[in-house]
Amino acid sequence: MKLILIGFGAVGQGFAEILLEHGDALQARHDFSAHIVGVVTASKGNLYHPAGLDIAQLLRTAETGSFSDYPESEPLRRDWDANDMILRGSADVLLEASPTNLETAQPALATCHLALDQGLHIVLANKGPVALDYGCLREKADAKGLHMRYEATVMAGTPTMHLAEDALAGCAIRSARGILNGTTNYILTQMETGMTYADALAQAQDLGYAETDPTADVEGWDAAGKVLILANALFGNSLTMNDLDVQGITDISSEDIDRARQSGHRYKLIAEARPDGGAVSPQQLPMSDPLASVGGSTNAITLDTDLLGKITLIGAGAGKLETGYALLSDLMAIQRAT
Amino acid sequence: MKLILIGFGAVGQGFAEILLEHGDALQARHDFSAHIVGVVTASKGNLYHPAGLDIAQLLRTAETGSFSDYPESEPLRRDWDANDMILRGSADVLLEASPTNLETAQPALATCHLALDQGLHIVLANKGPVALDYGCLREKADAKGLHMRYEATVMAGTPTMHLAEDALAGCAIRSARGILNGTTNYILTQMETGMTYADALAQAQDLGYAETDPTADVEGWDAAGKVLILANALFGNSLTMNDLDVQGITDISSEDIDRARQSGHRYKLIAEARPDGGAVSPQQLPMSDPLASVGGSTNAITLDTDLLGKITLIGAGAGKLETGYALLSDLMAIQRAT
Repeated sequence: MKLILIGFGAVGQGFAEILLEHGDALQARHDFSAHIVGVVTASKGNLYHPAGLDIAQLLRTAETGSFSDYPESEPLRRDWDANDMILRGSADVLLEASPTNLETAQPALATCHLALDQGLHIVLANKGPVALDYGCLREKADAKGLHMRYEATVMAGTPTMHLAEDALAGCAIRSARGILNGTTNYILTQMETGMTYADALAQAQDLGYAETDPTADVEGWDAAGKVLILANALFGNSLTMNDLDVQGITDISSEDIDRARQSGHRYKLIAEARPDGGAVSPQQLPMSDPLASVGGSTNAITLDTDLLGKITLIGAGAGKLETGYALLSDLMAIQRAT
Repeated sequence: MKLILIGFGAVGQGFAEILLEHGDALQARHDFSAHIVGVVTASKGNLYHPAGLDIAQLLRTAETGSFSDYPESEPLRRDWDANDMILRGSADVLLEASPTNLETAQPALATCHLALDQGLHIVLANKGPVALDYGCLREKADAKGLHMRYEATVMAGTPTMHLAEDALAGCAIRSARGILNGTTNYILTQMETGMTYADALAQAQDLGYAETDPTADVEGWDAAGKVLILANALFGNSLTMNDLDVQGITDISSEDIDRARQSGHRYKLIAEARPDGGAVSPQQLPMSDPLASVGGSTNAITLDTDLLGKITLIGAGAGKLETGYALLSDLMAIQRAT
């Protein structure tokens, strides 16, 4: 499998580290073998080699902030951009792992369309194209017999989409409801111990869970992007952000959390996708709800199905290796199906 | 896909009901189509028709306790046993859904071997053959390029094995640890409300969760069978019951449960499979453990992995449709892979 990787931040590097460390085992146990033939980045430069790039060198030079030290070896190209690689290269799969843009999904969206047009499967860690243009991408992929997978976009490598789309394929899913943002769950969990919202946010920022500008997390937009993905992928909707009710955690006070606890409840920021829409809102859950005991930055989702009732999956929702693994699991699923 | 179904109790009937009610949707959405060509039972009789049996008639006559009312239609056979159907029929898959025997696994084990010898894939709801002879069955299936699946044997249709063997295929699983027996979890949950062990057991029997002879559940043997399946399937072990430490819940008193609660813990019967062995034992879990809040007859499992950390799956562990669905999900996985 020859791969073009767009983006070489934490996710791309996590994926490359897994290939480097576990490549032999994957080959031996699953007959799985993948070569990164192209890497495209915003700040480190680009590299393309039809025989595959040297992953150890890729990781080493990325640490310097630039691929300029990556060793020469004919016919290495440093001047090709993503379009050149798709149009003139020989890859089988495009991996989109550049930063998410939930306003336009660009430039990733155009790259994904071009890749499908040229017969490449696409695997996304970038939420933008899946959240904003799922229907068109799915239609194009299906029409051309290509795979489009996006495990990384919901709960990192915790296999939400494998569960919903493969293992539960024979069920009808009636709703998906989860804790899909680790930053806000960490803040709410810390507030349970008596910390104020401001202190809990500052701690989340110190630990690297929250961005300097935490708006996308605490206002619920990151979770809303995941609701769009679930609503459009599971229920064939064509929802946009405007169709969702989105409320974050900024109005939740320590007193609210105390009062909830006194009545045996816990506040969680719940993201919910249904056949008729979706929402993000803080909710008081009874302790009997499996989502109530999901603490810290952990994520979880409950799928309500016709034949199996409720199925809950709990696991990491972020992390370099965890998200890198999501790309690997999608590639392995494509290999099993082709 | 042509199927021979061994056993037509709750699981077999649940599977048949799903095919009857959802067959058209499965065909339309997943291009999945299956025909039950043979049914073998201990008390209702046997039926074989190469063009497929009429599922509505199968379910209707099963209610009378005998297939003798099943309508004639050439070339229907009522005199073929499982071996005849495998050797002289034209099926693709053997579904083993007869009652579990954890002492010898027979007669199901011999039937499974014969099916593999004759080139049929095998799908099991019967725990016996998987718990007692996993290694030989797996070797035979692999050598002949056949599938052997057994989702139903661990947590009914809650997709434990799909998760462990497909979605997490690229990870190394370090241990599996779960609540794999609904009867004992129901009893322990009722005891938390102040009920005695004897009363809780009686209630579980009234509700049909526990057998008249509850030994296999309350002494931990049912959970131990699942530990063998997990240990042998996930870690390539060849363990037998003698290799496991098995302790049930019969020694847990209301006082034990009270004391645990006062220190913020809950008793759960934990089944654990590791690369070096396995065990079943009642354990006091802190409330931060996702397994602690799994109440009633619900099951759950935590898989500890190298790349994703801990992944927990919670769902039904029994039920007619839930277990019937497990057979369907295995057949769909075989269809995807062939």
